[in-house]
Amino acid sequence: MRFSLNQWTTRHWPLPDLAAGCASAGVTGVGLWREPVAEYGLANTAKLMRDHGLTVTSLCRGGFFQEPDALESNRRAIEEAAELGAPSLCLVSGGLPDGSRDLDGARSRVADVLAGLAPYAGEHGVQLALEPLHPMYCSDRCVVSTLAQALDMATPFPAAQVGVMIDTYHLWWDPDVWDGIARAGAEGRLSLFQVADWVTPLPEGVLTGRGMLGDGCVEFRRFREAVDATGYEGPIEVEIFNDALWSMPGPEALALTLSRYNEHVA
Amino acid sequence: MRFSLNQWTTRHWPLPDLAAGCASAGVTGVGLWREPVAEYGLANTAKLMRDHGLTVTSLCRGGFFQEPDALESNRRAIEEAAELGAPSLCLVSGGLPDGSRDLDGARSRVADVLAGLAPYAGEHGVQLALEPLHPMYCSDRCVVSTLAQALDMATPFPAAQVGVMIDTYHLWWDPDVWDGIARAGAEGRLSLFQVADWVTPLPEGVLTGRGMLGDGCVEFRRFREAVDATGYEGPIEVEIFNDALWSMPGPEALALTLSRYNEHVA
Repeated sequence: MRFSLNQWTTRHWPLPDLAAGCASAGVTGVGLWREPVAEYGLANTAKLMRDHGLTVTSLCRGGFFQEPDALESNRRAIEEAAELGAPSLCLVSGGLPDGSRDLDGARSRVADVLAGLAPYAGEHGVQLALEPLHPMYCSDRCVVSTLAQALDMATPFPAAQVGVMIDTYHLWWDPDVWDGIARAGAEGRLSLFQVADWVTPLPEGVLTGRGMLGDGCVEFRRFREAVDATGYEGPIEVEIFNDALWSMPGPEALALTLSRYNEHVA
Repeated sequence: MRFSLNQWTTRHWPLPDLAAGCASAGVTGVGLWREPVAEYGLANTAKLMRDHGLTVTSLCRGGFFQEPDALESNRRAIEEAAELGAPSLCLVSGGLPDGSRDLDGARSRVADVLAGLAPYAGEHGVQLALEPLHPMYCSDRCVVSTLAQALDMATPFPAAQVGVMIDTYHLWWDPDVWDGIARAGAEGRLSLFQVADWVTPLPEGVLTGRGMLGDGCVEFRRFREAVDATGYEGPIEVEIFNDALWSMPGPEALALTLSRYNEHVA
């Protein structure tokens, strides 16, 4: 089963309940987030996952490279990913510093911090997964906006150290995304495939408007087949930020997500 | 004076007041919108502009190519632009048809309708100005999302018939925008340069969140200099959709816009 439940899809589901719920639904992979893992305890989480036969498919998230302590905090995130057995650490690269208009500078800063982190990631067996975020997040969340740009930024590093994420929500609009997916595969940098649907109108702040699979306009099968065509056999993580979904009980949200995944993605 | 006031920046200012207000402020160019022009009357508008020594720098907007009557309605828009003496007709290409996920199909449809329109535009001395809109509008407003894509779509047509628009609000995030501006200039397709600032958080529906010049993170001078470097000597239209600006009296909104333009763009 390639389906993996990203923890933020059911963000209010306590970790032990989520683990039991996934195991009971036959789900074998989960993508975890640092904050709830820290709250439950890193070693406790690793044990909880093992006890329920769950694989940690990724750890969200490092990045935010504009922060002064970016190098140190990302090193800790790498250590955490390694302890959880997560093959990749998702990187949301951060936006512009407060009051700055220096977009080139912010992008250079990403490259600089990556250079400091990549060998450390390699030593820990963790691939840094640069995630291009939708351009609507460029100023405040992530200055890495297209797959081609993410791949260019990964180029100086060995593929085992720096890869890229393909998230349909962020990339569905990009006319170059199909070439980018093929390139990511050819370069051995396809770290992780995530899915969420695109729906409008967008909510205020545009953070919680991701759509349940099938509710929007993303061509999921086309994406999945393009990713598969590169030889990628890894997990398909469902990561949906959505108020309606978050207000549902965890087991119900998981059942809906699984059902839509089977209908639209698998 | 290269400054031009796009009518939507002061959208509640009645056309005769806007014309008098611009003339009194020394503004010589305005970008007009079809709906208020139709309301005031096409011939009346053309006369009003002449009487106040105003040049119509563009007509907004044609496009919406997913509509069944796109060819006919865009022909009318071309005729209107010609009668107003506007050198270009701004095209917002339209999103996906209701319920559709066929993004490639929608983009092909743009190319097909353009092919039907371009000679008609040429006969009327109007350049069709394909506007790449920010990718956050891809599903519901405009499937043309990057400058490179717009230029590719323009390629089959003579430059006098089909050009592109550079709007900082839509393009500021794009790592390829500087190459795109140079290419647009080299190909003789730079129809119009528009400016608005990028500010967050975005409002619900993301339509009215454009920022007053200087309130956000756009590098206006860098854009203006890149556009100038192509040899473009045309107008710089300020087009801001913003509730706070719309609630101001027209003369006050124009004075603020002019002052910010001089501070950040000129």
